[in-house]
Amino acid sequence: VRRILRLQLSRLHPDHLVVVLDLAGTFLFAAQGANLAIAAHFDLLGIAVIAFVSALGGGMIRDVMIGDAPPAAINDWRYALVALVAGVVTFFTYGYLRLASGPLFLTVDAAGLAIFSIAGARKALDFGLNPLAAILMAGVTASGGGVMRDVLLNRIPDVLHTDFYATAALAGGATMIAARRIGLPPGPAALMGIAVCFGLRMAGAILHWGLPKLGY
Amino acid sequence: VRRILRLQLSRLHPDHLVVVLDLAGTFLFAAQGANLAIAAHFDLLGIAVIAFVSALGGGMIRDVMIGDAPPAAINDWRYALVALVAGVVTFFTYGYLRLASGPLFLTVDAAGLAIFSIAGARKALDFGLNPLAAILMAGVTASGGGVMRDVLLNRIPDVLHTDFYATAALAGGATMIAARRIGLPPGPAALMGIAVCFGLRMAGAILHWGLPKLGY
Amino acid sequence: VRRILRLQLSRLHPDHLVVVLDLAGTFLFAAQGANLAIAAHFDLLGIAVIAFVSALGGGMIRDVMIGDAPPAAINDWRYALVALVAGVVTFFTYGYLRLASGPLFLTVDAAGLAIFSIAGARKALDFGLNPLAAILMAGVTASGGGVMRDVLLNRIPDVLHTDFYATAALAGGATMIAARRIGLPPGPAALMGIAVCFGLRMAGAILHWGLPKLGY
Repeated sequence: VRRILRLQLSRLHPDHLVVVLDLAGTFLFAAQGANLAIAAHFDLLGIAVIAFVSALGGGMIRDVMIGDAPPAAINDWRYALVALVAGVVTFFTYGYLRLASGPLFLTVDAAGLAIFSIAGARKALDFGLNPLAAILMAGVTASGGGVMRDVLLNRIPDVLHTDFYATAALAGGATMIAARRIGLPPGPAALMGIAVCFGLRMAGAILHWGLPKLGY
Repeated sequence: VRRILRLQLSRLHPDHLVVVLDLAGTFLFAAQGANLAIAAHFDLLGIAVIAFVSALGGGMIRDVMIGDAPPAAINDWRYALVALVAGVVTFFTYGYLRLASGPLFLTVDAAGLAIFSIAGARKALDFGLNPLAAILMAGVTASGGGVMRDVLLNRIPDVLHTDFYATAALAGGATMIAARRIGLPPGPAALMGIAVCFGLRMAGAILHWGLPKLGY
Repeated sequence: VRRILRLQLSRLHPDHLVVVLDLAGTFLFAAQGANLAIAAHFDLLGIAVIAFVSALGGGMIRDVMIGDAPPAAINDWRYALVALVAGVVTFFTYGYLRLASGPLFLTVDAAGLAIFSIAGARKALDFGLNPLAAILMAGVTASGGGVMRDVLLNRIPDVLHTDFYATAALAGGATMIAARRIGLPPGPAALMGIAVCFGLRMAGAILHWGLPKLGY
């Protein structure tokens, strides 16, 4: 059974699923950003910009860093379109259909985080970056957009002082890279990274994990 | 007559005029930024930085995105010099000669916006970007510098919650690209885009147009 | 004696010393940033991010501008590691061992500033940038990280309204480039730039130099 499982895993080509999940994560992150922009009294253009940046800003920083210009976020029109549509949809459904913080929301958010971080680390490796840089790119891809969003909203980026969020992304990226190093094929290594990131984010949110701070 | 007009238009090579207008727009945007920096009690270096970023930040983001390094803003020393001179001139004339919000100011501002956005979209097309990305680059080129300026001044970017500004830039870029798609040569297509952006910005400012917001 | 001195200077290969000083400057700037992040109640991840950005953000902006992707800050794992270690060390020693503003601190800070700015200008020249752009890159390398740090801390960048800091970096870069232009070899030209930047920063801090502002 183990041999068959290994065979199946090594055949698994997760690219199609990844694109679907990636676009779903893009929609969700964009809608989250649009909610904050509406609450901050931005106009429709501002809402679209924040939606775009929230969902795609992290990947754009990553692509500029690794030397992949133009960034996939604008080179592949599907991503830009999904983010802009998410912003407009959020605008017209705000008040009727609000993004809750319930279990479904958390699950989709954690899945998006996991997909973004592992995709970021994989792309960094494909472009020849060293393992430490690839782990950093996992964190940048997953949380860079949120940081840019908070800078544009003129507030301290959430990810820097609350929650167990970017840490899960970094851990997922590190797991994926470690799994590759010990010889696992890319597919299963990516799945392991996704599982670790998803699990840590879910556990962190449910159990209210946080990172140490100093009480000064 | 129509054939002659078409011939003349197709011969029109707007590059020399564009450089002059581009430098004029650079000076104006830099002077606007310098005014805000002086009001925020920045020192002379800070004023020069804000002048530079206000005028050239959008083009720099665009060039980094499309993969044109080093950005024209620093590779062509005329742009950097014009922006820095505008900052210094504003510093020494502040109090005597203030940038008003009168009709002349608005006209030059709208002209600068139109030139910047169409130049941004053209350059994006030249670098092989898709139409949606090129329209986004029109907006980034025209308003990215103002966003960076407001981030450095630690305030919410104006363009995201007031005014009919980046929208005019996006509409101008979209017009130019649509005109090319239906077969117009680059010169006339650029002029049409400039006219649309300029007209929308002027009309928007005079008629106090704004984009929809939600009253939450 | 003068001929021997000139011979020695022209043989001087400052690269090994530069790497050591560069890493020392990285550690110091990262520790400075970490202090501010702790005071702003960031968690351990936020402290590491601010440490990283403070020390390496300027060089990353420079490398993206000049077209050197991926930036040395992530491509050479030593820099990322030193910055992250500085953040963690600062976290665990905060309260016992605080970065003072005494003479030793000022000297090391000025040395780091000088190394960063001259290294930035040299790299810009190596990538074929014009002298004005290379001087700007001296300022960006030395103070860009502090600007990014202050943006993430949601405050107006210090360097734009106080102190004689980026000005020293620009003057050092300009000196180095002028020295090369009049025919000095790279080594001595770099040393002259470092001396000017270091001297101006020390004198400025001790004598409380500032740049002109307007009293509006």
